[in-house]
Amino acid sequence: MVSFTSDYIAGAHPEVLRRLIDSNLEPLPGYGTDPYCERAKEKIRNAVGAPDAEVFFLTGGTQANAVVISTMLADYEGVIAAGTGHVSAHEAGAIEYTGHEVLELPQTDGKLLPETLRDYLSAFFADENHEHMTFPGMVYLSHPTEYGTLYTRNELASIREICREYGLRLYLDGARLAYGLMSRETDLTLPDIASLCDVFYIGGTKAGALCGEAVVFTGRNMPKHFLTSVKRRGALLAKGRLLGVQFDALFTDDLYFRIGRHAIDLAEKMKEIFHAHHIPFLLESPTNQQFVILENSRMAKLREKVAFEFWERKDDTHTVVRFATGWSTTEDNLHMLDQALAD
Amino acid sequence: MVSFTSDYIAGAHPEVLRRLIDSNLEPLPGYGTDPYCERAKEKIRNAVGAPDAEVFFLTGGTQANAVVISTMLADYEGVIAAGTGHVSAHEAGAIEYTGHEVLELPQTDGKLLPETLRDYLSAFFADENHEHMTFPGMVYLSHPTEYGTLYTRNELASIREICREYGLRLYLDGARLAYGLMSRETDLTLPDIASLCDVFYIGGTKAGALCGEAVVFTGRNMPKHFLTSVKRRGALLAKGRLLGVQFDALFTDDLYFRIGRHAIDLAEKMKEIFHAHHIPFLLESPTNQQFVILENSRMAKLREKVAFEFWERKDDTHTVVRFATGWSTTEDNLHMLDQALAD
Amino acid sequence: MVSFTSDYIAGAHPEVLRRLIDSNLEPLPGYGTDPYCERAKEKIRNAVGAPDAEVFFLTGGTQANAVVISTMLADYEGVIAAGTGHVSAHEAGAIEYTGHEVLELPQTDGKLLPETLRDYLSAFFADENHEHMTFPGMVYLSHPTEYGTLYTRNELASIREICREYGLRLYLDGARLAYGLMSRETDLTLPDIASLCDVFYIGGTKAGALCGEAVVFTGRNMPKHFLTSVKRRGALLAKGRLLGVQFDALFTDDLYFRIGRHAIDLAEKMKEIFHAHHIPFLLESPTNQQFVILENSRMAKLREKVAFEFWERKDDTHTVVRFATGWSTTEDNLHMLDQALAD
Amino acid sequence: MVSFTSDYIAGAHPEVLRRLIDSNLEPLPGYGTDPYCERAKEKIRNAVGAPDAEVFFLTGGTQANAVVISTMLADYEGVIAAGTGHVSAHEAGAIEYTGHEVLELPQTDGKLLPETLRDYLSAFFADENHEHMTFPGMVYLSHPTEYGTLYTRNELASIREICREYGLRLYLDGARLAYGLMSRETDLTLPDIASLCDVFYIGGTKAGALCGEAVVFTGRNMPKHFLTSVKRRGALLAKGRLLGVQFDALFTDDLYFRIGRHAIDLAEKMKEIFHAHHIPFLLESPTNQQFVILENSRMAKLREKVAFEFWERKDDTHTVVRFATGWSTTEDNLHMLDQALAD
Repeated sequence: MVSFTSDYIAGAHPEVLRRLIDSNLEPLPGYGTDPYCERAKEKIRNAVGAPDAEVFFLTGGTQANAVVISTMLADYEGVIAAGTGHVSAHEAGAIEYTGHEVLELPQTDGKLLPETLRDYLSAFFADENHEHMTFPGMVYLSHPTEYGTLYTRNELASIREICREYGLRLYLDGARLAYGLMSRETDLTLPDIASLCDVFYIGGTKAGALCGEAVVFTGRNMPKHFLTSVKRRGALLAKGRLLGVQFDALFTDDLYFRIGRHAIDLAEKMKEIFHAHHIPFLLESPTNQQFVILENSRMAKLREKVAFEFWERKDDTHTVVRFATGWSTTEDNLHMLDQALAD
Repeated sequence: MVSFTSDYIAGAHPEVLRRLIDSNLEPLPGYGTDPYCERAKEKIRNAVGAPDAEVFFLTGGTQANAVVISTMLADYEGVIAAGTGHVSAHEAGAIEYTGHEVLELPQTDGKLLPETLRDYLSAFFADENHEHMTFPGMVYLSHPTEYGTLYTRNELASIREICREYGLRLYLDGARLAYGLMSRETDLTLPDIASLCDVFYIGGTKAGALCGEAVVFTGRNMPKHFLTSVKRRGALLAKGRLLGVQFDALFTDDLYFRIGRHAIDLAEKMKEIFHAHHIPFLLESPTNQQFVILENSRMAKLREKVAFEFWERKDDTHTVVRFATGWSTTEDNLHMLDQALAD
Repeated sequence: MVSFTSDYIAGAHPEVLRRLIDSNLEPLPGYGTDPYCERAKEKIRNAVGAPDAEVFFLTGGTQANAVVISTMLADYEGVIAAGTGHVSAHEAGAIEYTGHEVLELPQTDGKLLPETLRDYLSAFFADENHEHMTFPGMVYLSHPTEYGTLYTRNELASIREICREYGLRLYLDGARLAYGLMSRETDLTLPDIASLCDVFYIGGTKAGALCGEAVVFTGRNMPKHFLTSVKRRGALLAKGRLLGVQFDALFTDDLYFRIGRHAIDLAEKMKEIFHAHHIPFLLESPTNQQFVILENSRMAKLREKVAFEFWERKDDTHTVVRFATGWSTTEDNLHMLDQALAD
Repeated sequence: MVSFTSDYIAGAHPEVLRRLIDSNLEPLPGYGTDPYCERAKEKIRNAVGAPDAEVFFLTGGTQANAVVISTMLADYEGVIAAGTGHVSAHEAGAIEYTGHEVLELPQTDGKLLPETLRDYLSAFFADENHEHMTFPGMVYLSHPTEYGTLYTRNELASIREICREYGLRLYLDGARLAYGLMSRETDLTLPDIASLCDVFYIGGTKAGALCGEAVVFTGRNMPKHFLTSVKRRGALLAKGRLLGVQFDALFTDDLYFRIGRHAIDLAEKMKEIFHAHHIPFLLESPTNQQFVILENSRMAKLREKVAFEFWERKDDTHTVVRFATGWSTTEDNLHMLDQALAD
């Protein structure tokens, strides 16, 4: 059965895997102190155009969010996020586990709009009792969002400006950054992100790695003794090489971007297929995830041949489902989807 | 200047104070093991009509909420509350500090309606990915709510039924319970609350005590070694007598209810005064807090003679403010308010 | 039955109680913003000889320890304490509840000696793997210690010097500070403590208050938005006046010191009584707590007439017990102890 | 340069790597729900001789300790460990980060002896004030210990018996279990461990995996909704296959035991080399880690040709260092060590 359930259904991209094989027997020091980690960090600094950026590799996205947010917030602060943000809805309370509140704001197509943010902040500080409330200390954005949508350069710059004005840090969750950067509808580059955000992560797990996310701190603001803070959160990998080698591969010969481009190309073709079959979209995402609305009986039938992801109940007879492309998706997979929809 | 800023502007009710004076020199054991605590617990068990209820005294409301919620939730659970609930909005993230998420639902006049709760729960458990989300483990209600409104007996019974169906505990924050019980528009009694809730607290601080809240566990469900859990949260008072003596006084000769009645009577008169002066209400609460809308210049002028509480910004030229009555409010105070409004 | 079980067996010192009575009906703002709190803070600043000290009132000792330590430590830091320190042994894990480790060092008569501290710190930083360990961030001392012993001025200055050298903060738990300051064998004054410590607290609960500890931050180092951090730990008292009025009383006309002196005078007499009855001491404390060793059958017999506190098992036939004096202890109480020992 | 710094200096054992390569392109569901995880769990259940054991894969050892301990302890409980236990000393406070105290007891050759445990527990429960202390809820053992030593079957059975008597759970950290099981001096088998412990983990990272530890719950005691608790601790791997495939390989054709045997054989030869060169041992471990004492100038010289790990300072002129063997250690490596020591 062909699967579009996620962008992490396959193992490592073959080029990533080859590098793991090649380096496998080398004796290397642990905990991220090996030369592969160093090399990968240097390549990432180049790619993001920030020579003094600090990079730290973590294993997964929820882990990265919890570690970054909890080490950068002050005790009395929480993190602002769209109500549909990953930290708000799909991390089982991982941020709250660290003792911090997620301050959920209304979303628009999965995005937190600058005006929503500004209204909230001006109301908060105007409230005479705000010392009895959680202070906003950081803004969390995902790019692409959970609905596959993207911030424009202007939007991100506006949010940045608001953050600066109110003394908040800006954090961008790039679990699917490869697809955001390679979207045909974006004007936001990796150096833009690095120059606008205080911290962000470049997702590996959903873009060809077995695991791994590269957290990038811009402006020399990596929390002091960060390795120790990572360790006490159970997030420090003994064989840090596993992350270093993979990111070294991903940032060699533009592999990360090629992976993104491939998935975008196939996602665009997939959109055409859905259009051809008159399947309505929840919203037509410019990235590798597509959210379409299926009549329930059609959904059941399709599931016999094609795997995809339940997203949310639409109404009594319809369901929103997600189809994702990734590095391992093939033209042939799309053909099978087309056939199955035609049945 | 006359003050209606809150129901905790004065010290202890004179009868409470007298009992503190009378018992002051007695040598007593600490940490709530003294006979006053025992007596107060027994009186509370009688008042709530639950002979096997377990009672524990804590110092304040946010503390009670954090201790109760964090000791009764399982690791993977959060607490459901109205978005305007005290735990959601005005405790500076005290629940999140304990590692648990507050699952905020839409409110109606400050209340969490049974249908809102049911919709949320059925959607949660229908979601195929709910294992990646915070499980709802408890429902938090405040009664009166933050807007002074009250649940009806039917509403509370419905919520109780939903909780039972989904395996959730039901917790009622009674910071201002005295005023809810004595409202002219309530059909909910203290024994009703004890029979419908798994745990609730009877607020002392806002009803005549210097400090203190009586947490009541019904159904023998006080968490094991609760004293130790209270201790490690820094919430165990050495001179537990301070709480025991006060609650013993509050539940002697119906003092708690008399305090509630007094404040309600004056609140009803205060409502009449606002009506007479054509001051619009945000909502006309049946309890001791009244939320009215003042034109900003009138508000500024009134503040010269009367103290009240900023609640929220209404629009560019109007503000919602709160007036509260309490045991120390007098007819004379109301007369001064009336005069000031007439000026 | 006469009781020496602790220094918090009675209510408030009569002068403290009188001030509570006198101020009871005044309408006052909440959360520590009333004039009594302001006045008490000013008097404390004068008493400690630090005009720019910041003072914050909390309810109890374990609460003060948890709030101070958790707000002043960085994420990756723990607090050093003697193994017998209150935070190590008798707070049910309150510090760990905040996510921080107590780094327990060997004690000498309840004290953490400067050389013990220096050895630990030099070994820690010499360890090549110390980034995988909890960083020491603060030194916790209790003065008097849990065994009633006292630091000398020289010892405290040495510890201060070591802290400065290694970048640690120095925190002194003064739950029983009144008795330490009034001991006949101390050379350490309140201004000394204020000049040597980064933060300390002046204990009220064990020195004549119903509840309350005054945390004193020296050097303008009170954590930012401290009120909010206190609130989210459930430690912010609504009627802050309860603490302000009491500390205002305690620091008026040297009441705090008079209370200390009275208890010390009686403790010295109590020591004479034990000597006269040939009761051996675990150690002869210079403060208000005395730890003596009783043969178990004698202990059982004595308990029929005198209340005291179990401390620890000495051997199969002997037990260490604690006798404490306080503001409410009288000469007559001592006479009863003398009689009971003679029986 | 030849390296003995740890047992995690190389990548994956070739058989493990081959399985990763073979399965790489298969589309698989995430979060541990794939057939490799299922197969690996089944093989582990067979190997431990417990058909109803529940197995959950985590990424690393500190993570496994923090997740297991924090989900199995009650709120008021801490975990007992030897002062040299990994959770006590080398996890940067990871257990405390979860809010729980590590109750450190004296060690003997890195082990927690049954009599030490019993003495502590009987004293704890005899203490009249133990409700103000952290309750012991679990015993943590590492096997092999941090000093490479091993518990005997009798010792583990005694500890088990004490745990049963006092209502404690028994948890065994098997980060290096492969080497403990294959030691020439052990009488403890994997089924023994499964029958005596409530929970333990089989270490993969230090025995041939790129990462991964298999937590085994015996007696159907895996905490409810464990996946959600893992998720909220940032410890749930999206591509769970990475762990499943590796453990499937490790438990196919006894690979895990062959890896252990190989390292033990070479460790025994390494011991002979140290003896031949009259290098004294801190203690002569029966497993794959050897702790020897080097004169500092000899250490400096040796470090030019051989990599090993600093362990602790012995005295002004001597240092304790660690040499570890692993699956990638060769006879040739030992020969180089022998040569370097001869120089």
